[in-house]
Amino acid sequence: MSPIEALTKLRTELGPIDHSTDARKLRSKSRDRFAQSPVLRDLLRGRNAEIFIAPRDKEELRTAVAACARHRIPITVRGAGSGQFGQGVPLSGGAVIDVTALAGVLGWHGDRGRQIPRTVRALTGTVVADIDAAIRPSGWELRMHPSTSQQATVGGYIAGGHAGIGSCQWGILRDTGNITALEVMTVEEHPRLIELRGRDVNTVHHAYGANGIITEVELPVAPAWEWHELVISFPEFEQAARFSVDICNSDGVLKKVVSPHAHPLPQYFPDLAGLVPDGEAMVLLMAAVQSVPNVEDLVHANGGRIRYRCLEGKGTYGAPLYEFTWGHSMMHYQRRNKKLIGLLALYPQENLYESILRIHRDFAELGPLHLEMKRIDGGLSCQGSPVFEFESQQQLAAITAQLQQSGLFIANTHTPVLGASGMKPWGPKEAAFKREFDPYGLLAQGKADDVVGTDTVSTSTALPNSGWSYRLSN
Amino acid sequence: MSPIEALTKLRTELGPIDHSTDARKLRSKSRDRFAQSPVLRDLLRGRNAEIFIAPRDKEELRTAVAACARHRIPITVRGAGSGQFGQGVPLSGGAVIDVTALAGVLGWHGDRGRQIPRTVRALTGTVVADIDAAIRPSGWELRMHPSTSQQATVGGYIAGGHAGIGSCQWGILRDTGNITALEVMTVEEHPRLIELRGRDVNTVHHAYGANGIITEVELPVAPAWEWHELVISFPEFEQAARFSVDICNSDGVLKKVVSPHAHPLPQYFPDLAGLVPDGEAMVLLMAAVQSVPNVEDLVHANGGRIRYRCLEGKGTYGAPLYEFTWGHSMMHYQRRNKKLIGLLALYPQENLYESILRIHRDFAELGPLHLEMKRIDGGLSCQGSPVFEFESQQQLAAITAQLQQSGLFIANTHTPVLGASGMKPWGPKEAAFKREFDPYGLLAQGKADDVVGTDTVSTSTALPNSGWSYRLSN
Repeated sequence: MSPIEALTKLRTELGPIDHSTDARKLRSKSRDRFAQSPVLRDLLRGRNAEIFIAPRDKEELRTAVAACARHRIPITVRGAGSGQFGQGVPLSGGAVIDVTALAGVLGWHGDRGRQIPRTVRALTGTVVADIDAAIRPSGWELRMHPSTSQQATVGGYIAGGHAGIGSCQWGILRDTGNITALEVMTVEEHPRLIELRGRDVNTVHHAYGANGIITEVELPVAPAWEWHELVISFPEFEQAARFSVDICNSDGVLKKVVSPHAHPLPQYFPDLAGLVPDGEAMVLLMAAVQSVPNVEDLVHANGGRIRYRCLEGKGTYGAPLYEFTWGHSMMHYQRRNKKLIGLLALYPQENLYESILRIHRDFAELGPLHLEMKRIDGGLSCQGSPVFEFESQQQLAAITAQLQQSGLFIANTHTPVLGASGMKPWGPKEAAFKREFDPYGLLAQGKADDVVGTDTVSTSTALPNSGWSYRLSN
Repeated sequence: MSPIEALTKLRTELGPIDHSTDARKLRSKSRDRFAQSPVLRDLLRGRNAEIFIAPRDKEELRTAVAACARHRIPITVRGAGSGQFGQGVPLSGGAVIDVTALAGVLGWHGDRGRQIPRTVRALTGTVVADIDAAIRPSGWELRMHPSTSQQATVGGYIAGGHAGIGSCQWGILRDTGNITALEVMTVEEHPRLIELRGRDVNTVHHAYGANGIITEVELPVAPAWEWHELVISFPEFEQAARFSVDICNSDGVLKKVVSPHAHPLPQYFPDLAGLVPDGEAMVLLMAAVQSVPNVEDLVHANGGRIRYRCLEGKGTYGAPLYEFTWGHSMMHYQRRNKKLIGLLALYPQENLYESILRIHRDFAELGPLHLEMKRIDGGLSCQGSPVFEFESQQQLAAITAQLQQSGLFIANTHTPVLGASGMKPWGPKEAAFKREFDPYGLLAQGKADDVVGTDTVSTSTALPNSGWSYRLSN
């Protein structure tokens, strides 16, 4: 059966399930925010699905997946398309299956007598912020969320995300206990639903959808403290770094995001620039109201000044403060200069402050530092790199090598290929899950262990990075 | 005026305030649990107050303190007397003022609209467990409490305590944010009430009552998860240590106490011995129910076995599990052998697991290790030492020196003198508070900077310890 025949049969079998082969639709639904990377901007252009399918519920999803399996049609599962590495791009055509209609909070699991939820469970297409909106009125919220919380689906966050707002307190998604359970659908003629708990969740987490279709997500909750947003300035970046490390190491201080930006990066945020004196470094911070006195002490001890403070979401800058941090920072920088990029460099936990200073000093010529403080694998670290103008893949490779020589662990954010990225270990268990849950190898083709050495996307995005490893969550 | 005249005048001025000079009463109210230390057992025997005063409320306390100030009568403030280092012993006679009647939860401070308390405030004499009992029904509890929670007053915990159940998650009391506010009464003819917040709280915390009388305590709250008690055994202590370090480093796993005991210590607990095979090491653990699957994974990964599990306080061993940990452990050991003691050795944060193994190996001849995992000053550490038979102060000094040479930081728990203990830095700020709040130097005489070189208690309890220092909370 030719691909065209297969597609025709698929369309027939989809019946009333919403689908489209309209070229414009296919183009828009085959993109995520990869254009943020100049490497991916050209490379992934034109990689489009052949059919777009939008099931309304899990049963329609099952029907669509079964039909794709029967006709061996590649599947790329799509959430909001807010990923930045091309995770959501169909590299080999086939079907894009949009799961945003599978949305809704399914329930809380907890101690009913005392009304304390422990976890919250939602359908894969639920927007992350909608989960928080549902549970916050009773005093609870997710431990962490991406900076794209207002757009991203929870399934997309788990499949393509790594950490986020909350990681300075709770660690990364992969850290034991941060994902309670996942329900995944297999890609077979008769798709099954499999419940994963304990260590198994990490096998599917951050696999870019390659070894199972996430249909439900269960996550632990944390107190929804009254979070305050603070914009803090420091005359010198060294002070901002000292403050950022120290506040994260203060276990008794409740914080949700700690985001230092060296001069002149604060000036690249049109909505924040007026708050920070030109020439100074900036830390964007979310802290619980009861911890604000401790924050004030620490700011003062490090020579900084709180320039702005408000309740979460009430800032004069027109968006939640977290939409200026993590992945969002680069979006703002690029509005100033489209050529700016960074690398996802992870700092060693030992002598963290000294490492930050060393990179700040040694790479001053290259560009100013943007960091995000995060706990990972049992200790405090941070991620980020100098922000610089992209010239070529060769330049990127050279900078990667230099940062590695300086002791950092580099993940490649300019590739949709897991192996080239290096953030996700793909071992025997990941491969075994893929064989069992996706026996025909239809999911996320070209992104996991089906990549061959000559694959264009893989070879042309490769960097000499060594990848990340995890001791505690392996 | 002679001391006897002063005392007579004091009694007159106390009027209806409950007080006593009955010898038996004075003896019993001049003791804490110092007899646990063979050094202190002899040394502090006979150090009795001359008058016992038990004010019913803050006004009576003020009257009593004013009278003592007028007549220059030394004051030792007493809570439940559950301290173990002689913190509550009047070294130079005078008055013991019992504040246990100043009890009660004063209120919660939080976001009323959303019913999330942030802090809880209580009178100094409130039993710590009573605070938890008051707030737990609505889902909140203290971040930490001592193993003596059922007896200790919250004021005594703050004045004489350091850490406890909860410190493996939140750090020690001194860590920024773990004490919200203290109200202290000055010792003057007209006693004032001073509210301390921010960094000032640590100046009075752990000062053994030497620089102010704590009258109210405000502490941050945390979710009252459904805690489960687990008794876990491991064939080898190395496995127990690996598990203990790893679970503490798993930021996404909610735990409240992690208490490893090397063989044969498990056999010293009559109520637990039957649960742990002879020859094996034991970890006593409290974990939130939603984290128990992660605990099971970690136990399994380290070759251990969960021997017992129950809801907090429901164990067949007849007491909350935490009453077998921290300071309580030694009480149980001493029921087996009254000569057993330990030292309060703090392990370096770097290469913690390796340090534990080294001490376990190098001091195997001396005795089995009991440790308590705790976060302190921004990182994971643990405290504890080999448990061994006391012979002499010289032996203690020699072991102290050996442990220090092995890289540990030793605090001396066999002294009521702050300087000899080494856990509490006494700097210019502590001294300034003492001058302002206790201008006549009446509080906790002989325990702080009023100690002279020839003082018997100080010289005869001194060890060659270097003391502890804190970077973040200074």
